[in-house]
Amino acid sequence: VTRAAELVATGEELLNGKSLNTHARELGRALWPLGWELARETTVPDDRAAIADAVRQACARVGLVFVTGGLGPTEDDVTREALGDWLRRPLVEDAAALEAMRRRYRTAGREMTPSRRSQARIVAGAAALPNRAGAAPGQRIAWEGKTLFVLPGPPNEFRAILDDHVLPWLAAQGGGAAPRRIFMVAGLGESDVRERLEAAHTLPPGVAIAYCAAPGQLEIRLRTAAELSDAEARARLEQAWQQARAALGKHIYAAERRSLAEAVAQELRTAGKTVAVAESCTGGLLGARLTDLPGSSTWFRGGFLAYANELKENLLGVPADLLEREGAVSDPVARRMAETARARCGADYGLAITGIAGPDGGTAEKPVGLVFIALADANGAEVVRAHFPGDRATNREWSVQRALDLLRVRLAGAPAAVG
Amino acid sequence: VTRAAELVATGEELLNGKSLNTHARELGRALWPLGWELARETTVPDDRAAIADAVRQACARVGLVFVTGGLGPTEDDVTREALGDWLRRPLVEDAAALEAMRRRYRTAGREMTPSRRSQARIVAGAAALPNRAGAAPGQRIAWEGKTLFVLPGPPNEFRAILDDHVLPWLAAQGGGAAPRRIFMVAGLGESDVRERLEAAHTLPPGVAIAYCAAPGQLEIRLRTAAELSDAEARARLEQAWQQARAALGKHIYAAERRSLAEAVAQELRTAGKTVAVAESCTGGLLGARLTDLPGSSTWFRGGFLAYANELKENLLGVPADLLEREGAVSDPVARRMAETARARCGADYGLAITGIAGPDGGTAEKPVGLVFIALADANGAEVVRAHFPGDRATNREWSVQRALDLLRVRLAGAPAAVG
Repeated sequence: VTRAAELVATGEELLNGKSLNTHARELGRALWPLGWELARETTVPDDRAAIADAVRQACARVGLVFVTGGLGPTEDDVTREALGDWLRRPLVEDAAALEAMRRRYRTAGREMTPSRRSQARIVAGAAALPNRAGAAPGQRIAWEGKTLFVLPGPPNEFRAILDDHVLPWLAAQGGGAAPRRIFMVAGLGESDVRERLEAAHTLPPGVAIAYCAAPGQLEIRLRTAAELSDAEARARLEQAWQQARAALGKHIYAAERRSLAEAVAQELRTAGKTVAVAESCTGGLLGARLTDLPGSSTWFRGGFLAYANELKENLLGVPADLLEREGAVSDPVARRMAETARARCGADYGLAITGIAGPDGGTAEKPVGLVFIALADANGAEVVRAHFPGDRATNREWSVQRALDLLRVRLAGAPAAVG
Repeated sequence: VTRAAELVATGEELLNGKSLNTHARELGRALWPLGWELARETTVPDDRAAIADAVRQACARVGLVFVTGGLGPTEDDVTREALGDWLRRPLVEDAAALEAMRRRYRTAGREMTPSRRSQARIVAGAAALPNRAGAAPGQRIAWEGKTLFVLPGPPNEFRAILDDHVLPWLAAQGGGAAPRRIFMVAGLGESDVRERLEAAHTLPPGVAIAYCAAPGQLEIRLRTAAELSDAEARARLEQAWQQARAALGKHIYAAERRSLAEAVAQELRTAGKTVAVAESCTGGLLGARLTDLPGSSTWFRGGFLAYANELKENLLGVPADLLEREGAVSDPVARRMAETARARCGADYGLAITGIAGPDGGTAEKPVGLVFIALADANGAEVVRAHFPGDRATNREWSVQRALDLLRVRLAGAPAAVG
């Protein structure tokens, strides 16, 4: 049984072009495995009447409503007041939230002003949801058989309370959610996966599959149809998962939602190995993606941005005649870049990317989107040639993801996927 | 006079966690300079009743409604049908759109199937809006004094029709839009700018100011109050702009919406200069940001990712005893990194970042968020020390932006902002 929720996002900044509203995507993703689906999202400005109107309409349609934003200390933060007015309940100061806020401001060396203190107020009767990432607590409000969750607007605070309080509470309600499973695939496109799973009738009946494709990684969702008994649904889902594993093999890189970079980091940590990079057309994007991850210093050494051709020669020892003969975007240049990065950085693996990201620089022989990716270890280097069909940003993104997958497959001990 | 518009975004993928809805931000930004404001955004799934319901409610509140998504060739693309049903108008095939689609599919070597052809249908009486980025045309529908724009969901197609047809049409309606101006500031926080412009009563009366802060750059919007005559409003706005320029000086880096990296690229191109980088805690993010820009090979040389300390020694020639004595996160190490990157890459400028991004690695003396940024040229190096208060991602972003601004100010020929 799928149950419907709605989101009411508040904030002028979401409508005037200042901020991107990411709550709908985050919430949609988080609710899915629990058997809830987001049926509608409404964004309104910081206006009491507009907020109350949108929440009232949402409550008329569904039993679970999320309200985000407008819990800060400034005058345009009016969500608390809007909800109190609409529900005809006073706002009360939550002692625990106030105490947490006092500690927070003391640590930061900031004063507890009356406007800051006002953030500790919640709608009377609501449960305060502690906020480890910010000042204002969230709230869970029960009203006429409906549940309202009120959460802060800043994405990290929204996410913290969602993870700490909302999702556990929803999971504990249980009952009726069809079992679901998410896993991640790399090195195969959506159509390849469809063919292996759907066209080949690999999955048992009653199991539905959905795809969320991003450059170089594919999230796959399995769920069972509602008319199955709970035990039967679980058995089918487990069977489907085992069959998907058999059909997709090493292309499955995680049995939960996870980026390819996170998977590579995990493999490197487990293996106790290190990596260095040499980047041309990606200009630092591979290094940036790897060092986005906390603790990357244990397995990331560093590397070279050899964007200009002379630097491929001067920094990475690619011979001038090789560059002249083969061109900077070529198999042997990629190979040499990876080998030198590995050696000069003292890493176990060297990972190199050289290509034509576009929009300019393509020729008939070497078109925009042509990229060579090389992985070097103590035994030599392996090179993959790829031709991506996208624009500059997409080609760079694909290049990074393909490089990460090359390393992932090597670390997983399987023969590398070439193509 | 500010006029209100609403957006109804359709698409299951915007609610189930697959796609991020960027239309509200794009539209909010595009409408603002024309004197329109987005008053509400509603996202609904691909469901005729839900779409009609949301559009009906939006039309009851405002005179301009945008509907996005659901114009493709598959069965779950139902926006055309939902609007036709609700308006009680038939769908008719638009000859020009069909012809453009035929050409498009012929070029791509794809067949014109009946389902693809169905994309040429528009609501009877609507104006078809040619789509240079995709198959389905947009539509402009006049209904009971309201205007509906129906646009495709893919962001590039949405943007193309917005730019080609929607914004010109809105601009031509003219009449009553208060003149507005956007400009960009770096090196000053919002509170500093507020002090210089607002607390000092720098701006003429009748001019309102709004801020959109992002890490390291600030977008500022000026507009005049509605009760002024058009000529008077324009005069005040021009006066305000001149006064803001005087008060903020070199901190203004663009007189239009533009990123700091774009401004730096423009300055480098104009000056005919090149830059190289040496990155520690940002791990490639500075290089990636610069090479995001097409044509960066004319002014970006490359650089070093010296993440591990040995690489600061081995690749960048930072003496071991200096690293030992001062630590990797220090003024002299940043200086040496910038100088070596410049020299070894043969660039006019060397830009280096070394810091503690977090969450781990901080000490009492060198806390998380402490960053040294150095800029070297032929005359030596200048170092800026900064302490950012954010999480890992934010500290890295701030570091890159501060580095870019250091270079921007140097290129603009002014003394560098230190702080």
